[in-house]
Amino acid sequence: MQASAASQRRPISAYGYEQAKALVFSKYGEPGDVLSLHGHSISPAHSDKLTLRFLASPINPADINQIQGVYPSKPTFTTDLSTAHPIAVGGNEGVAEVISAGSGVKNLAKGDWVIMKQPGFGTWRTHAQTDDSNLLKIEDKTGLTPVQVGTVSINPCTAYRMLKDFAQLKEGEWFIQNGANSGVGRAAIQLGKLWGYKSINVIRARPEGTEELKQELKDLGADVVVTDEELQEKGFSEKVKEWTNGGRERLPLALNCVGGKPATAMAKLLSPEGHLVTYGAMSKQPVQLPTGLLIFKDIHFDGFWVSKWSKENPEEKKRTVDHVLSLIREGKFKDTPFDEVRWDFETKQDTLVAAVQGTLGGFRSGKGIFVFGST
Amino acid sequence: MQASAASQRRPISAYGYEQAKALVFSKYGEPGDVLSLHGHSISPAHSDKLTLRFLASPINPADINQIQGVYPSKPTFTTDLSTAHPIAVGGNEGVAEVISAGSGVKNLAKGDWVIMKQPGFGTWRTHAQTDDSNLLKIEDKTGLTPVQVGTVSINPCTAYRMLKDFAQLKEGEWFIQNGANSGVGRAAIQLGKLWGYKSINVIRARPEGTEELKQELKDLGADVVVTDEELQEKGFSEKVKEWTNGGRERLPLALNCVGGKPATAMAKLLSPEGHLVTYGAMSKQPVQLPTGLLIFKDIHFDGFWVSKWSKENPEEKKRTVDHVLSLIREGKFKDTPFDEVRWDFETKQDTLVAAVQGTLGGFRSGKGIFVFGST
Repeated sequence: MQASAASQRRPISAYGYEQAKALVFSKYGEPGDVLSLHGHSISPAHSDKLTLRFLASPINPADINQIQGVYPSKPTFTTDLSTAHPIAVGGNEGVAEVISAGSGVKNLAKGDWVIMKQPGFGTWRTHAQTDDSNLLKIEDKTGLTPVQVGTVSINPCTAYRMLKDFAQLKEGEWFIQNGANSGVGRAAIQLGKLWGYKSINVIRARPEGTEELKQELKDLGADVVVTDEELQEKGFSEKVKEWTNGGRERLPLALNCVGGKPATAMAKLLSPEGHLVTYGAMSKQPVQLPTGLLIFKDIHFDGFWVSKWSKENPEEKKRTVDHVLSLIREGKFKDTPFDEVRWDFETKQDTLVAAVQGTLGGFRSGKGIFVFGST
Repeated sequence: MQASAASQRRPISAYGYEQAKALVFSKYGEPGDVLSLHGHSISPAHSDKLTLRFLASPINPADINQIQGVYPSKPTFTTDLSTAHPIAVGGNEGVAEVISAGSGVKNLAKGDWVIMKQPGFGTWRTHAQTDDSNLLKIEDKTGLTPVQVGTVSINPCTAYRMLKDFAQLKEGEWFIQNGANSGVGRAAIQLGKLWGYKSINVIRARPEGTEELKQELKDLGADVVVTDEELQEKGFSEKVKEWTNGGRERLPLALNCVGGKPATAMAKLLSPEGHLVTYGAMSKQPVQLPTGLLIFKDIHFDGFWVSKWSKENPEEKKRTVDHVLSLIREGKFKDTPFDEVRWDFETKQDTLVAAVQGTLGGFRSGKGIFVFGST
């Protein structure tokens, strides 16, 4: 990703109008085909309205699926941004700073940082105007970077709730997960470690750097890291038995973002009454359930979707976010590696769209995040 | 099944010794190869011992799997029945009458009817001696037949708990099930109807008699009966939408004893947050889960095994059994059709083994149950 070389001051029009830009689409399709950079102006904030300046907005895989029209959570198409035909703004996660607030706004003020209460807001934009019903205030931004706050809502929250809400894991017990080097995977390793859970982490073997990645995850707190070939080898269950002290330490939780055979392989390792929680489907293969696991081992197969959870549990979401941010502040929770894509006022459409399209690629050490230039 | 033509009085030895016979096996294999009829004597009941005379013991598919050695619940091999090598008695369900009780027995007396607290007792036998820890007393046998009481533990309990314990079904809501003409299926139709639930029932189409079977299940209380071909036809979800009042009536529960594609087809019809509960695997195909159902529709995939449930919930099992028996007594719960196999003292081994082996066959309108001649 190329960030533009220099940052110029953004022109500000008279009477407090903000010149804003947003990455938008008017129909579903491949991001490279349907995304465009749309310029518009935002009127001064009045009554219960707030004007926001975005600080950092990640490019998550779900954002791409949403643009492709294959994601169940649909964007809002609107003509509010002064267009002849309805458009939607891409992106679902991000952090913004309040730059002005109408007189009717109560709980937020200029300078506050906010994140989106739920996905669907449209976060790939320099500015937005909204009321406070869509926003969660960051109570204490001290010591936090925009990238840290802008990426707390989806991956760390997903890992946090899956560890807490399904299998009643206790200290000294184990969980297993695939896609362990993903944002969710890295969050699960670290949160698990903090809470005294041990983890078996499955990654895809790659042409090179597999051992380095294993070490990287162990440095984050992973107890065991294996490739999916190792997971599916004969005798792997014997190894798991060794690690879990002859099976005396329970393994009641598996986190699955891959699907297919690697998911079934994890399910077979679970202790009776365990849960396999699916939150992604990178392999695009369905999960296969040997019936015996369901009936005789009483294994439960559940799913987790942070969008739905956030909508139904706004208070719990705020507590979860606050807790993760406090862990970051205390140095107990490390950032996932990101490719920062600088978005200044003069950054070209092609650069921004290429960053989104790039997220469709194969192996990536991290993923893209728009980091906005200050005005 | 041929019952023996005449019933002779069973010889009773001096001093209250009972002459007993049991269908036993000393190693796993096909029932026809490993089952034999074993004669032994039972000493008079003393201290906390009870002597039982069996009245009726069904032949369930799980009994066969247990003899084959492929069932997770293993039988107890013992030399208690005066054999040189350990043997196990077949059968897991049944009803018996107390014919004598030692002086230390408190809660049971001669003439009482009992069922087994858990599977694994060995019920294919004319008599047994045990203490009361293995037995559930039938509080009121008035108006009940041995076949009714002897078949209440597994199928009706399975249907009852699956309807009650998974999806919090409310009156006016729907469930869907395959294998709807099985013992569990017929129990679910009737209990569901009594509790105000509506049902979509899936059966296998058969060379003839499909319409008659549909009518038979409707007479039991089924709202809709379809074949699995109909279930998997395009446009079936539209029909479900019509039946459920445009989808306004929820369909949060599916009961699965088949597996494979018909199970996935049912899962796709469920309302968000619904449960597919698997209790059998007649097709021997694993259940396939499209990931979207798990993540975005929050469908849960669980299993139910009445053996495990009975072990963990003895009090609840007693309440469930008592409730079903009271419904039978009130004429609100009809029997599943059975092929009665008469077992008198002189009935030949071949007849009994053939009855067990026959349960392995294909379509059956009912299934076998040993009904013991009175002494």
